[in-house]
Amino acid sequence: MKILVQKYGGTSVGSIERIENIAKRIIRHKKKGDNLVVVVSAMSGETNRLIALAHEITDCPDPLHYDMLFSAGEQVSVALLAIALLKKGIKARAFLGYQVHIITDKTYKKARIKLIEKEKITKELHQGTIVIVAGCQGVDEDGNITTLGRGGSDTTAIALAAALKADACEIYTDVDGVYTADPRIVPAAKKIHKLTFDEMLEMASLGAKVLQIRSCELAKKYRVPLSVRSSFNNVTGTFLVDEVKKMEERVISAVCVDKDQARFTLSGLPFEPDMMEKVFGPLTERTIVIDMIVQNPPVNNTINLSFTVSQADYKETKKVLESLKTYYKTIHISDEQKIAKVSIVGVGMVSQSGVAYTMFHILGTHDIPIKMISTSEIKISCIIDRAQAEVAANALHAGFQLG
Amino acid sequence: MKILVQKYGGTSVGSIERIENIAKRIIRHKKKGDNLVVVVSAMSGETNRLIALAHEITDCPDPLHYDMLFSAGEQVSVALLAIALLKKGIKARAFLGYQVHIITDKTYKKARIKLIEKEKITKELHQGTIVIVAGCQGVDEDGNITTLGRGGSDTTAIALAAALKADACEIYTDVDGVYTADPRIVPAAKKIHKLTFDEMLEMASLGAKVLQIRSCELAKKYRVPLSVRSSFNNVTGTFLVDEVKKMEERVISAVCVDKDQARFTLSGLPFEPDMMEKVFGPLTERTIVIDMIVQNPPVNNTINLSFTVSQADYKETKKVLESLKTYYKTIHISDEQKIAKVSIVGVGMVSQSGVAYTMFHILGTHDIPIKMISTSEIKISCIIDRAQAEVAANALHAGFQLG
Repeated sequence: MKILVQKYGGTSVGSIERIENIAKRIIRHKKKGDNLVVVVSAMSGETNRLIALAHEITDCPDPLHYDMLFSAGEQVSVALLAIALLKKGIKARAFLGYQVHIITDKTYKKARIKLIEKEKITKELHQGTIVIVAGCQGVDEDGNITTLGRGGSDTTAIALAAALKADACEIYTDVDGVYTADPRIVPAAKKIHKLTFDEMLEMASLGAKVLQIRSCELAKKYRVPLSVRSSFNNVTGTFLVDEVKKMEERVISAVCVDKDQARFTLSGLPFEPDMMEKVFGPLTERTIVIDMIVQNPPVNNTINLSFTVSQADYKETKKVLESLKTYYKTIHISDEQKIAKVSIVGVGMVSQSGVAYTMFHILGTHDIPIKMISTSEIKISCIIDRAQAEVAANALHAGFQLG
Repeated sequence: MKILVQKYGGTSVGSIERIENIAKRIIRHKKKGDNLVVVVSAMSGETNRLIALAHEITDCPDPLHYDMLFSAGEQVSVALLAIALLKKGIKARAFLGYQVHIITDKTYKKARIKLIEKEKITKELHQGTIVIVAGCQGVDEDGNITTLGRGGSDTTAIALAAALKADACEIYTDVDGVYTADPRIVPAAKKIHKLTFDEMLEMASLGAKVLQIRSCELAKKYRVPLSVRSSFNNVTGTFLVDEVKKMEERVISAVCVDKDQARFTLSGLPFEPDMMEKVFGPLTERTIVIDMIVQNPPVNNTINLSFTVSQADYKETKKVLESLKTYYKTIHISDEQKIAKVSIVGVGMVSQSGVAYTMFHILGTHDIPIKMISTSEIKISCIIDRAQAEVAANALHAGFQLG
């Protein structure tokens, strides 16, 4: 049985007209003989509306009930898509996360899928039914609704594709693939036709909003045959692959900009073995994701430690760090919100020398000071002033000849 | 353990400000030591918004998915109320229908509760938690979400009160009790302090929108200690009782107006034993509720049959009746939408003569022709022109000295 998993994002189902267009697209695929599992996000704007309601009550809504609230958005869109397909005489059936046993851990707001019991879905597929699954939601072992975090519908689609051993997983979004840079920032950006899982993973973590990081991890782990394409046209999108021949010729694949960053610096921390645990333990407990970490060697037995978090976690991070002063009475805490992370990504970088130098040189000639640097095998990231992000991205895109 | 079940309607939770006011009211009750189970409807307007979305796609949305869509409204309001209570440091926990095992049949859009497994709720109550339950929803034995029909949150509250053997069940709405007539139609209407279950049941079926019919049936069956009151003030409401002494003095308790009616008349039906089955069978299959039925004795072996349905069922009823022409080629079908049903209700009617005559006399002196009549032991209903409904209601209210 050939199985195709498709995921449609919020803008693709943003109105009844768009839902009906998606229904037509799905029917075309169905008529080709594919067994279809369709994952749908909430209608665009709906998630924000629900979250705004909760935030009218409190800045920190209780996570369990936040997830119950949030998941209502996808419930609406899957029901409407099913109604649209059934109206056209096509067998379709919508399911919520708990109904198809998408079992997650209890990390509300950012839950991880532990298991998918696929029997209910395969039974429906065998009967020729199009199975529609609410994105971004699951259920913990006690029957509480959980959600997978922003962009979690990609994770739902890829996890289903992995569990069902699907022949293809197509992520439909409002752009027609992955670009060498965000076209809104870098007008010269071009679509990338093939990208490795590793590059995509780096790009997701560097602020490219095309795919959620965890969905890239999953796709890589289970080698899900993945493509990203537009639901508004029939243009061929970007295919994710293990490795691409000829790719060695390409040193850099893309430039990424992430403006959703905030930096913290702790000065005068004692150079002690349990210090890191004391700093990062309470942040991890609150599931705050630390991005870049920079630490210089100790001077006079004290160290300076800098790291970045997402803007959403800024307030809570600040509160947690202030409480460190109970142990470390002499530390100084500073932070900066108006920063951006610009990065270059490419598997070709591994075997090339001088890539970092070229990056620093390009930024230098544009009078852009570098505040922090972090590297991996296939990317280099620099923290700069947020006001200079656009100039930096365009300069790097041109300098590495991605246009 | 003393248990109090409260139900708050859509206008009571129509905004975040109102939800926070309800939270304060609930906390006051909790501090008195009551064990609280709170049933909540969707925020006012939300249910209509969701239904409008489905109707943008089709006039007849698939019922299973309609219920999935519809139930998202209550999911949002219970989550928000729980968030509001938790913010105030009060232990609270919201549950959807399936999570507290409100098991229904499979009559989507109008499901009936078969069973409530109360263990999960009593466990939470024993821990001092306020239990919040989504109104109007349940789950069938296959795990599909069902809804109980408009006003079904009352049914949820009363069913929970019955299952938990609650000491009281309070229905909070936007009026402070049951009135002798709808005050918007009859300005002289007065609040009724005590009403029998039978009277309430008749009034519900006659268009008084205070309580859903099925919730009255349930309340009567399980003798649930019920009151109806306003969530916007602390005025004593209307108490539902088995029987009231002194009530014999009162012949009529209330006047009801129902403008949500449409009439169908089938002329020239053959007088055959299976005719009624052929007419009403297909309507029942579609769960269309028939209200008044009038049939005259046969003339020339044919009969004329009239009945009323709710406006919502008008289109579908018409379609079903048209298909009768395949059996009965010579029947004539007529219908009328601009009608109203005015009724008088009262347990005292049983032992009083001349009540019907007085009603017809009052309508006659106001030049209001009566198109159909239907009676029970404790009510008399007349179908009249919709344009004359207000005049009729005021005249009856004054004529029976209810003011």
